[in-house]
Amino acid sequence: MTAKNLPQLFPPETMARLRTAVDIDPGLVAEDFTDPRIRAALQKTEILITGWGCPPLDERALAAAPRLRAVLHAAGTVKGLATPACWERGLTISSAATANALPVAEYTLGVILLAGKDVFGRRERYRELRTFTRGIVPGVGNFGRRVGIVGASRIGRRLIELLRPFDLRVSLADPYVDPAEARALGVTPLPLDELLRTSEIVTVHAPATPETRHMFGRRELALMPDGAVLINTARGSLVDHDALLPEVRGGRISAFLDVTEPEPLPADSPLFDLPNVFLTPHLAGSHGNEVARMGVIVADELDRLLAGLPLAHQVDRAALEHAA
Amino acid sequence: MTAKNLPQLFPPETMARLRTAVDIDPGLVAEDFTDPRIRAALQKTEILITGWGCPPLDERALAAAPRLRAVLHAAGTVKGLATPACWERGLTISSAATANALPVAEYTLGVILLAGKDVFGRRERYRELRTFTRGIVPGVGNFGRRVGIVGASRIGRRLIELLRPFDLRVSLADPYVDPAEARALGVTPLPLDELLRTSEIVTVHAPATPETRHMFGRRELALMPDGAVLINTARGSLVDHDALLPEVRGGRISAFLDVTEPEPLPADSPLFDLPNVFLTPHLAGSHGNEVARMGVIVADELDRLLAGLPLAHQVDRAALEHAA
Repeated sequence: MTAKNLPQLFPPETMARLRTAVDIDPGLVAEDFTDPRIRAALQKTEILITGWGCPPLDERALAAAPRLRAVLHAAGTVKGLATPACWERGLTISSAATANALPVAEYTLGVILLAGKDVFGRRERYRELRTFTRGIVPGVGNFGRRVGIVGASRIGRRLIELLRPFDLRVSLADPYVDPAEARALGVTPLPLDELLRTSEIVTVHAPATPETRHMFGRRELALMPDGAVLINTARGSLVDHDALLPEVRGGRISAFLDVTEPEPLPADSPLFDLPNVFLTPHLAGSHGNEVARMGVIVADELDRLLAGLPLAHQVDRAALEHAA
Repeated sequence: MTAKNLPQLFPPETMARLRTAVDIDPGLVAEDFTDPRIRAALQKTEILITGWGCPPLDERALAAAPRLRAVLHAAGTVKGLATPACWERGLTISSAATANALPVAEYTLGVILLAGKDVFGRRERYRELRTFTRGIVPGVGNFGRRVGIVGASRIGRRLIELLRPFDLRVSLADPYVDPAEARALGVTPLPLDELLRTSEIVTVHAPATPETRHMFGRRELALMPDGAVLINTARGSLVDHDALLPEVRGGRISAFLDVTEPEPLPADSPLFDLPNVFLTPHLAGSHGNEVARMGVIVADELDRLLAGLPLAHQVDRAALEHAA
């Protein structure tokens, strides 16, 4: 993993747990399986702890690690790390993707609650006008507001859970979730077009795949009702920014974009200065203290592994195919 | 009540419920008990439905309403409405304060989740610099962040409920809540000073009373650690703005102020333009569709009253004393 992330992933109390559980050298952190120190250590390594910056665990690396049986990934997806050779070898692979999903769902919840009351727009207008009119503001509010979730990913599902205490009407578009399952989750299953037509807030939690590239294009964005809000915390490639620009420029819809393509945006992008676009620097995922939550997941998984218990976050090769 | 609020409080589906339940004239809405139409109607009125803009239900009004037995208030506090004469008369008084508490707690939750990740500051910096550095941002995040709640009001208690799904460490300062009750709520009871010293985010949910005026003064604000965030959705009088200004001006702490004194602030208030002050136009409470939730509460209470069931939101005279 990227060495400088180690103290954030494994602060002293978590590292102490690892040292109690296994024979580990906290000084041995590398970003490359060809590092001679790592190659020497791999000879006797049974469990590998990985994180952001880990290169693919390819055949050559595996050949150097005859006793390796488990990889505990202190980050989100293992797509870049878990090669076909890992699965053929029968490695147990676990990831902290669940922990990494929480901050994104929490950020999205915060945005939904505030956007539903047009907090950002009303703040700007108060700042501009230096006054406001008393009385009930029409058109806003979270009593019965319709929220559409695109993608029942880990983040999408966590968001569905977090939305339960509120009086919002939540729908879900996901081709991999059958209607009965959606209803069991407490949401209304809808085809994407219908969700776009009927939602006041749409939030994207689909994976970046060739099929989802520009899934929000001119046609899809045009389906959104006037005043609707689009939230993207997934990947920039899901939204066609050229199609988005005319929709937000006139103020017809608003957007909260935590991810873009490219990222960061070109300095002259008009998206920076539109009052109804809230651009953030890819901050929804784990940052600061949230990173340590992934270390805790790894320490928990390690305890389970050593106790011979099933892992709580084992990665399934088939499920990985259509996940983020 | 203020007549123009009627359709928002009681949209057609809720008004239909009222008409089915009782003999009601939806055209008879007044803001003054001396209105001759109201005085005539009061003669046979058994149940009064009130809302924002209702004047005190004083002895003269009560004398004109010999059959009156219940007041269902489609708004928050009944302090301005329920005179001593109402209690002496033994009126049953119910309020939709619970419904009115929900949007405030929801707004506060949204702010806590976003402020914990410094979303507003990082958005501004991205806008200014037009770029950002990849990698883990230190110092932010909602894993273990310490949130202090001042006042276990309806809003404070609802917020405590809403905060349960998150990995935040929540403490409470409220002289009317004993430590055992606080622990049962799942929060750490602390004296106010200790809460201020140890919280990264402080949110105010205490009532405006003579005792709470300027409860956040120079001394209290100085106790807050560097980088802390103050959220006020209660009443402007609770915070001494003259004491707040030097603390926010240097950027030592940040503030989210939905209420101020005076309100709106004078147009030349420096609070408008500070990057670390988020001023909003008293929007946390019920607006837009949220107003209709109070009408639903009144329709529900009416059904209970007619069925001889205990009301769900009956106002207790003693509890009203130290409530908002």
